[in-house]
Amino acid sequence: MERIERDTFGPISVPGDKLWGAQTQRSFENFNISPTDKMPAALIRAFGLLKKCAAKVNKSFGLPERLADAIISASEEVEQGKLMDHFPLVVWQTGSGTQTNMNVNEVIANRAIQLLGGTIGDKSVHPNDHVNKSQSSNDSFPTAMNISAAVEVSKHLLPQVNLLKEILEAKAEEFKNIIKIGRTHLQDATPITLGQEFSGYAAQIANNITRINQALQDVLFLAQGGTAVGTGLNTYEGFAEKFAESVAEDTGLLFKTASNKFEALACHDSLVHLSSALNTLAVSLMKIANDIRFLGSGPRCGFSELWLPENEPGSSIMPGKVNPTQCEAVTMLACQVMGNHVAVTVGGSNGHFELNVFKPLIIRNVLHSVQLLTDGCRSFRENCVVGIKANEEKIREYVDKSLMLVTALNPVIGYDNAAKIAKTALKENKTLKAVASELGLLSEEDFDKWVKAENMLNPTVYNVSK
Amino acid sequence: MERIERDTFGPISVPGDKLWGAQTQRSFENFNISPTDKMPAALIRAFGLLKKCAAKVNKSFGLPERLADAIISASEEVEQGKLMDHFPLVVWQTGSGTQTNMNVNEVIANRAIQLLGGTIGDKSVHPNDHVNKSQSSNDSFPTAMNISAAVEVSKHLLPQVNLLKEILEAKAEEFKNIIKIGRTHLQDATPITLGQEFSGYAAQIANNITRINQALQDVLFLAQGGTAVGTGLNTYEGFAEKFAESVAEDTGLLFKTASNKFEALACHDSLVHLSSALNTLAVSLMKIANDIRFLGSGPRCGFSELWLPENEPGSSIMPGKVNPTQCEAVTMLACQVMGNHVAVTVGGSNGHFELNVFKPLIIRNVLHSVQLLTDGCRSFRENCVVGIKANEEKIREYVDKSLMLVTALNPVIGYDNAAKIAKTALKENKTLKAVASELGLLSEEDFDKWVKAENMLNPTVYNVSK
Amino acid sequence: MERIERDTFGPISVPGDKLWGAQTQRSFENFNISPTDKMPAALIRAFGLLKKCAAKVNKSFGLPERLADAIISASEEVEQGKLMDHFPLVVWQTGSGTQTNMNVNEVIANRAIQLLGGTIGDKSVHPNDHVNKSQSSNDSFPTAMNISAAVEVSKHLLPQVNLLKEILEAKAEEFKNIIKIGRTHLQDATPITLGQEFSGYAAQIANNITRINQALQDVLFLAQGGTAVGTGLNTYEGFAEKFAESVAEDTGLLFKTASNKFEALACHDSLVHLSSALNTLAVSLMKIANDIRFLGSGPRCGFSELWLPENEPGSSIMPGKVNPTQCEAVTMLACQVMGNHVAVTVGGSNGHFELNVFKPLIIRNVLHSVQLLTDGCRSFRENCVVGIKANEEKIREYVDKSLMLVTALNPVIGYDNAAKIAKTALKENKTLKAVASELGLLSEEDFDKWVKAENMLNPTVYNVSK
Amino acid sequence: MERIERDTFGPISVPGDKLWGAQTQRSFENFNISPTDKMPAALIRAFGLLKKCAAKVNKSFGLPERLADAIISASEEVEQGKLMDHFPLVVWQTGSGTQTNMNVNEVIANRAIQLLGGTIGDKSVHPNDHVNKSQSSNDSFPTAMNISAAVEVSKHLLPQVNLLKEILEAKAEEFKNIIKIGRTHLQDATPITLGQEFSGYAAQIANNITRINQALQDVLFLAQGGTAVGTGLNTYEGFAEKFAESVAEDTGLLFKTASNKFEALACHDSLVHLSSALNTLAVSLMKIANDIRFLGSGPRCGFSELWLPENEPGSSIMPGKVNPTQCEAVTMLACQVMGNHVAVTVGGSNGHFELNVFKPLIIRNVLHSVQLLTDGCRSFRENCVVGIKANEEKIREYVDKSLMLVTALNPVIGYDNAAKIAKTALKENKTLKAVASELGLLSEEDFDKWVKAENMLNPTVYNVSK
Repeated sequence: MERIERDTFGPISVPGDKLWGAQTQRSFENFNISPTDKMPAALIRAFGLLKKCAAKVNKSFGLPERLADAIISASEEVEQGKLMDHFPLVVWQTGSGTQTNMNVNEVIANRAIQLLGGTIGDKSVHPNDHVNKSQSSNDSFPTAMNISAAVEVSKHLLPQVNLLKEILEAKAEEFKNIIKIGRTHLQDATPITLGQEFSGYAAQIANNITRINQALQDVLFLAQGGTAVGTGLNTYEGFAEKFAESVAEDTGLLFKTASNKFEALACHDSLVHLSSALNTLAVSLMKIANDIRFLGSGPRCGFSELWLPENEPGSSIMPGKVNPTQCEAVTMLACQVMGNHVAVTVGGSNGHFELNVFKPLIIRNVLHSVQLLTDGCRSFRENCVVGIKANEEKIREYVDKSLMLVTALNPVIGYDNAAKIAKTALKENKTLKAVASELGLLSEEDFDKWVKAENMLNPTVYNVSK
Repeated sequence: MERIERDTFGPISVPGDKLWGAQTQRSFENFNISPTDKMPAALIRAFGLLKKCAAKVNKSFGLPERLADAIISASEEVEQGKLMDHFPLVVWQTGSGTQTNMNVNEVIANRAIQLLGGTIGDKSVHPNDHVNKSQSSNDSFPTAMNISAAVEVSKHLLPQVNLLKEILEAKAEEFKNIIKIGRTHLQDATPITLGQEFSGYAAQIANNITRINQALQDVLFLAQGGTAVGTGLNTYEGFAEKFAESVAEDTGLLFKTASNKFEALACHDSLVHLSSALNTLAVSLMKIANDIRFLGSGPRCGFSELWLPENEPGSSIMPGKVNPTQCEAVTMLACQVMGNHVAVTVGGSNGHFELNVFKPLIIRNVLHSVQLLTDGCRSFRENCVVGIKANEEKIREYVDKSLMLVTALNPVIGYDNAAKIAKTALKENKTLKAVASELGLLSEEDFDKWVKAENMLNPTVYNVSK
Repeated sequence: MERIERDTFGPISVPGDKLWGAQTQRSFENFNISPTDKMPAALIRAFGLLKKCAAKVNKSFGLPERLADAIISASEEVEQGKLMDHFPLVVWQTGSGTQTNMNVNEVIANRAIQLLGGTIGDKSVHPNDHVNKSQSSNDSFPTAMNISAAVEVSKHLLPQVNLLKEILEAKAEEFKNIIKIGRTHLQDATPITLGQEFSGYAAQIANNITRINQALQDVLFLAQGGTAVGTGLNTYEGFAEKFAESVAEDTGLLFKTASNKFEALACHDSLVHLSSALNTLAVSLMKIANDIRFLGSGPRCGFSELWLPENEPGSSIMPGKVNPTQCEAVTMLACQVMGNHVAVTVGGSNGHFELNVFKPLIIRNVLHSVQLLTDGCRSFRENCVVGIKANEEKIREYVDKSLMLVTALNPVIGYDNAAKIAKTALKENKTLKAVASELGLLSEEDFDKWVKAENMLNPTVYNVSK
Repeated sequence: MERIERDTFGPISVPGDKLWGAQTQRSFENFNISPTDKMPAALIRAFGLLKKCAAKVNKSFGLPERLADAIISASEEVEQGKLMDHFPLVVWQTGSGTQTNMNVNEVIANRAIQLLGGTIGDKSVHPNDHVNKSQSSNDSFPTAMNISAAVEVSKHLLPQVNLLKEILEAKAEEFKNIIKIGRTHLQDATPITLGQEFSGYAAQIANNITRINQALQDVLFLAQGGTAVGTGLNTYEGFAEKFAESVAEDTGLLFKTASNKFEALACHDSLVHLSSALNTLAVSLMKIANDIRFLGSGPRCGFSELWLPENEPGSSIMPGKVNPTQCEAVTMLACQVMGNHVAVTVGGSNGHFELNVFKPLIIRNVLHSVQLLTDGCRSFRENCVVGIKANEEKIREYVDKSLMLVTALNPVIGYDNAAKIAKTALKENKTLKAVASELGLLSEEDFDKWVKAENMLNPTVYNVSK
């Protein structure tokens, strides 16, 4: 069953069970490009919120209450994700996102008509005149972009990043007394504690929270009220401010109207920069996940300092083969975030005159990165970090056999003798202690007295004469 | 309704109407990351082909005919995309793709059991022992990567790129007699024909076809037969070669077994390089689509040399507002391809030892770029390029008023007088011809005799003395 | 004339007129890679400052005054760039930058020896024991990275970005009464003022200043005091804090010691993020410079709304050919900054364990981007923006002939008649006013009364009934 | 001492000891951007070759022999790099490279005047009329780009890549009998030989040679003859072909004239794609250098399978600390090549109409990447790969203690018993052999008989019944 919808191009056939109208249908037919790349659900939900708030403000400027309330109800359904089947359009459409704005307008209009007991398509609630009132695609779409990005980051990403930070801090505390060999250039170096190592990871994540929060500030400024070119033609004086207040009230986030609407339509620097902050988080996760899987490598022929949780069969024939699969997922999605950032950067740089027309591309990639990082941080924490155990035996073995601790003997037996011990130990594959004793340079007791990794963990100038 | 499936980790509950088994279920639960990022359908189809060919070869090495034939039938259903609901896993899983390989093995095993009249889950056709026989995830997954990439590029992308090339060539022919002003640095320059301009676009696309074909050659070498680490342990001597022959026969593409299986598992340089060729095509499309939308800008206040087809309402109040929406879609997806290429590059560079574990990331991005370019080339051709018309009046007007043609008068009236004409024309906003006449330097007839854009379109040293 | 220098590897021949020592010489010979890529001068100068401050703090911890003062004097010469010929090493060396740290230590030691009247190479001032006292390459190099980045950004980049912002604001003021046609999707749209357009550019740049300042905060935390692995072994308690105070005092920037030294050695997230802010600035500059060159395109066959200053011959035969060369330089360097950012991102993500060993790569690209943007903003402002003139005649012509203004007639003569005027005007290539009059729909006087672009520049719902 | 030079802008003061003229001087003053980024020397040398060949062809078309021969001599000096002090311009100039083309023309003209006994600046050999005869900057600059890229790749990069391939092949041969544990997911897996592992590296590099050669084919097509917009106005019919022949003869490379000159000016897809091939090589090098430094990690607390050559002191207190500095340089430069590739991609995508004006950016990055890879491959080979030794003791120890070899016992004592051995061995930190014996499942002799890593290195289905 189909029905006929109309726009200024004339009539067009639309699936009978769908609420969208003519302009949505045309876009659906004209942009048959990568059909799985639907406009992100988070953007559609933000559009629901946007249309609700716009209707409230329009009501205060004279939009009849009956229409306004129906629009508000219908918009809430969109906001809650109840009408997702009615948003068939892909990202690869017009670069202003006009077609998705019209998709939203058409669905809300038809749903409002339903709620008011009318006939779908009768335009008694009009997609342009009523739902899109005081708005243009050119200010609505960027507004929805910023709302969706800010909401997803604030309500989903940041809590997960924070939980990851906390579990890393907890691990730093848990491991604070485990002394291990440090590694620089991948080579054995002076000792640190495993807790210190994890504290570095926690600090990386903590700094990312600050960065993301800073980047978010800019995103809270909304384009709404600029209409077609930024001047605000065809909207009420005061509409922009009231709208931003309404969104802020609804979301609890400090949205404000953009002070320069020309900038807000013509570029998306604030989202480019938010993407940057996501990129930096990806960089941090790559480092941390790489470290953890290398420290967990083995069980016999790797670094083997950590035991990672075993979540699924590694191999049906090899007991003990635990693959660091969560680390793998995290590092893969980190690469994707870096790639998405380049897409956002290039799209962000290519705006022209009063409108950047890479809007769907930009918001798609920002929201994709946000989701990847949100889910990735959660999955990594729940399925990996929380369950990490230290292989204390191996860690101790490395500290014991490391040649690096010989440093402690310099002031006791002199650099040359210390070097002789170390070189002999390396050459003959023995411990420092054994060689020191064999060479008659130091008793095992004296060795144990002087060579203490636990004294090498803080700012201190080692002074044997004291 | 649920049923219990088992693996070496023990029993686990699986949805009753799904064919997947325990390992799929575990991945589904452990990797709840960006659920819309399913493993690409093209990869799953390629896996169907792979398992079919593997079963054929296994049959020749002794796999019982009854089992082999059931596996072949089930695999064909996967290849044909009939069982897509049974592949719930996302890209963000283990970096070897093992879980998707097991998903395929489990689905085919259970489907084969169904075909043989058994009970799903009874392991009478075993996912490992029978479906995965002579294979490892570590060679199967990269094999499916290369098969899917090669098939999608050969059967879908290249035909569409070729059609785009042909329509551009047709336009070059159509416009070959339309003389227009050339532009360098965006500034008016000496004339060319619109056909020459389009011939440049056609040449760009033609060169991309060559590049993609070159990059494809490497992708035809398959990892299958390397098993877990590249040595081929647990597979038959000759399995690799027979398998590649079978895939080649089935697809009509010149697949061969990789001469070095260690390389084939440990890196994906050939897909990184295929991604490069897609990146170069994106670069070309960006240039062409940008030119076309700028040449179509206006209708009154832009370059306005081209009329682009009007596919949807541009504005309800502005007649003649045609937005270059197809160009916008193309340039957006070009940015995405560039971003995807960076993701592939970073993932490709991060392999370690015997296995690159960014496999799902890499193939996801390659296949995404392939689909974007395939659909983008088609949409751009069908909905834009084919319908482009020249605005000959405007083009002629530019040629007539361009100051550049004054060059032709240098040998007739001398450089100084020619410069005087040009400068006066620019200052007084007049045509060269009018100024030449007003200044008494040249009659309108003589001007028309000497100043002929059509003589400026080929390699020629302009020589007035002739 | 050569002289012999020594390190733990033994003797090595060094050019007699150079102050560097054995370790520098070895690096010079072992890393003959892209010899023009010297370590950035700004980094070397920052190292001079670093060694000076370290010597001051060491003095307070007991380094003999005579040695300390000589080191301070020599360091100041390095800081002032007086010894640049003595830093021959390239970026492509050890990833910790150890060799450049030793280059600095060796040059300062030898220069201090000179100042004290000793013989170069006599180690009376020792590169390790005295100049590098309480330090390690692993904390010194990242400290020099952050100092150099913060100083270059604060003292050079931000002032130039600010001047660019101010000139754009001045232009926005200068052009505030020039009404022009707006363009969305490159297509004619409703009017704005040229001042509004430039205000958007100014707002973009202003926001970048905020972003760069935010990103800079993180960079002010210094690694110094972490020594080899972050524990601070071999440095004094309190060294880190005193050092940071000394640097802060010297530079006037709010440097502090990093609260987590493990993070400060093992990653460079703060510089990755600073690079992001540079990337966003590049994105903004790309947009602005592109707009300006397109608006300046012509002079006869382009948008032609702006006259850009003519700084050099565009063509010897074409009067009036002004190429937008400053825009070209700016857009090229913007691409470079985007590329540099990817290099920084990839390098930043690849650290392992206690040390990121992509340090020289990272700082090279950050400083390169800083210099490109510093010089680019200055050159663009001085040689282009400041001299931009509006082509008011052309701008007015576009406004007059634009079909868009017909919108104003909807409430006067009805949408259908207005549309008829617009379509006829487009088809017959006439002005709206002429067509309105010809069709007998409106007198020229009435047309002028109703169609006023100056009423379309602000938030206003156009209401004819008032 | 200064002298006065002139162009159409009037007189300008030029340093007396320099051969450049007015246009160079203007660019030098107007583009004071990142002064260390000089136009690459390889490009200037290619320009020397270009001007020489152009003069030869011009001579055949009537340029007086005396002038032509002087130009040829002067051009040869440029080609040989003898006049490099006379090329002061930076990359960040006009995007067509016109200013560098004029720099070349001016220097050659003045040098030719010198050779003919004239006075510098007297224009008796004219930079435009004689040196630039039949040419435009718009075809000359891209021609010099392609010549320089092709020559540098062919004569410098490919030989070094080939030598790296050969040394890796030699190492594969040297290590062919050393059996080691394989690693997938960084976890212990079935054995391979160290030779097999290195054969994978060699195969990666070999494939890159093919890719670079393929990418090079496109670069051999030259723009020369297209002049200002691609039409060839102001050049002789046949000039393009004769010129390409002359360059081919001179270089021994198969240069040809581009079949479509519009494409050759308006885009640089062929260089974008060459940059891709460099990017893929960087990806390969990243993988190989990462593997090698991880395999060389230790000496006591890492993988420690390889001994890397010690080229410089790692630490003054730690004997045996060898940092993998060559690997670090290689991985850093690989990141730079990836970043450069993004810069080239973005610049390549931003051309407009008849001219891409990101030419200097593009060639700078391509040549930078070529040099980095050329020098990087050489340095890596000479200072690292050639001297790599296997730590056979450690490698053997890993194989002996790996739990993986238990696989071989499955058919002998059954999977359950084998698993029991492996799990006990892991838990109690013992060897498989010891546990097998302790558990009374297998004598040490039988263990040695069945568990043979050397039988696990080839395609083979392990069959105990034989």
